Amino acid sequence: MKKDFLSCEIYFYPNSLEIGEEIIIKDEEAKHILKVMRHKVGDKIKLTDGYGYEYEFLITYTQKEKLKGKILNKRYLPREPNIAITLACSPLKGENTEIMLAKTTELGISGFLPVYFQNTIASLTENKLKRLKKIAISSLKTSAGTLLPKIYQPLSFSQLTENFSSFDLVLLAYENSETRLADIIENRDAIKNILLIIGPEGGFASEEIKKAKEKGAKFFTLGKRRLKSETAGIVAVSLILYEFNNI
Amino acid sequence: MKKDFLSCEIYFYPNSLEIGEEIIIKDEEAKHILKVMRHKVGDKIKLTDGYGYEYEFLITYTQKEKLKGKILNKRYLPREPNIAITLACSPLKGENTEIMLAKTTELGISGFLPVYFQNTIASLTENKLKRLKKIAISSLKTSAGTLLPKIYQPLSFSQLTENFSSFDLVLLAYENSETRLADIIENRDAIKNILLIIGPEGGFASEEIKKAKEKGAKFFTLGKRRLKSETAGIVAVSLILYEFNNI
Repeated sequence: MKKDFLSCEIYFYPNSLEIGEEIIIKDEEAKHILKVMRHKVGDKIKLTDGYGYEYEFLITYTQKEKLKGKILNKRYLPREPNIAITLACSPLKGENTEIMLAKTTELGISGFLPVYFQNTIASLTENKLKRLKKIAISSLKTSAGTLLPKIYQPLSFSQLTENFSSFDLVLLAYENSETRLADIIENRDAIKNILLIIGPEGGFASEEIKKAKEKGAKFFTLGKRRLKSETAGIVAVSLILYEFNNI
Repeated sequence: MKKDFLSCEIYFYPNSLEIGEEIIIKDEEAKHILKVMRHKVGDKIKLTDGYGYEYEFLITYTQKEKLKGKILNKRYLPREPNIAITLACSPLKGENTEIMLAKTTELGISGFLPVYFQNTIASLTENKLKRLKKIAISSLKTSAGTLLPKIYQPLSFSQLTENFSSFDLVLLAYENSETRLADIIENRDAIKNILLIIGPEGGFASEEIKKAKEKGAKFFTLGKRRLKSETAGIVAVSLILYEFNNI
């Protein structure tokens, strides 16, 4: 969408770097830089480290699927939301977990936390978790974002509720709520990190709703329509960002 | 998401019906009703006609992949947004057009209008248009919606601008705009139908932006991140529905 960004591809390098530092880029990123984008010695490209920094990088040496270069510049980029959203959601069937993660990473979530709810059907293998990390990297680059969302190991719903206190606000998109998101967000300036809970394909179990309420989660509506879990996740993240003036 | 709806599947019947009317259901819908959901003579199921009505239907006769029955009840359902959104967007690569249509149909758009922009790469064959219609039906059922979005024949961008006057408001998600959606929507009560324009993968051409402005489109931002076209479409539809109190 953002044409001014489109002309400048960004590549991912998983460590923090300093100006003047020389590094080697290998494997997939190197392949993309050399084979797909056909960069040569002397070209300057952009790197992001997933921790919020963007680097200007000069290519000084290339080999088949490997290249060397030097960091010319480093800057912290304000392309991240002013709130940290951790999206807690069920593993979903088919490609739906991937779609939800990709779209919410573009939008700028800071954490993705798979949760096994009572009605969860799908499961997440170690391989699938690895694949999710790849998808997050790819979506981060797409969106010109600089902060890679952390992909957490799956928790049970009850483990999740024990972590509520780490967040300034816990939001739960509930099918039976009629409260608008706008009506439960108070004290915007004091809220820095939000846990957003999206239910599984079969909906929340009543004990889960009871427990979440006890532990202080605030329920809100996503409208009268029935949304698929991954759609609900994308819509809820959009609305939270909108409420906090990031969109 | 909406558990109370989840227990009651809805099937699609493409014509308006009256109470007492007897109809035959064949093909895919019949297969789903009989083979997947294993309904039998005497069961009551729900139908939707895609025009806003929901029907109670009694199965009176079944054959291999065919069933007969009678309309017992008919009601107009308020599960549709209070504004009609027509989403005008470019054909996209891979499955992205399908993802955008599926998600925005769940949310409740009323029209989907493919547009060939200067930077459009993908194209829409007749077969792909047919497939889009199937996807819309499936997402309508998923969302318990009752109004099937109309899938239009593709237009050129200049043909699109000639149609601006059919809408109360034309919104364009523009990468260089810093105006928030909230700041351009005035006179909410007078707005009944909105044309929402989402650019292609390569962004808008400058002539397109100029022409859209001349013809009265209002530009708004989707934030500082670079969103993929299909993500932009889903986010923009969510925000418009939120602004008009449908979410």
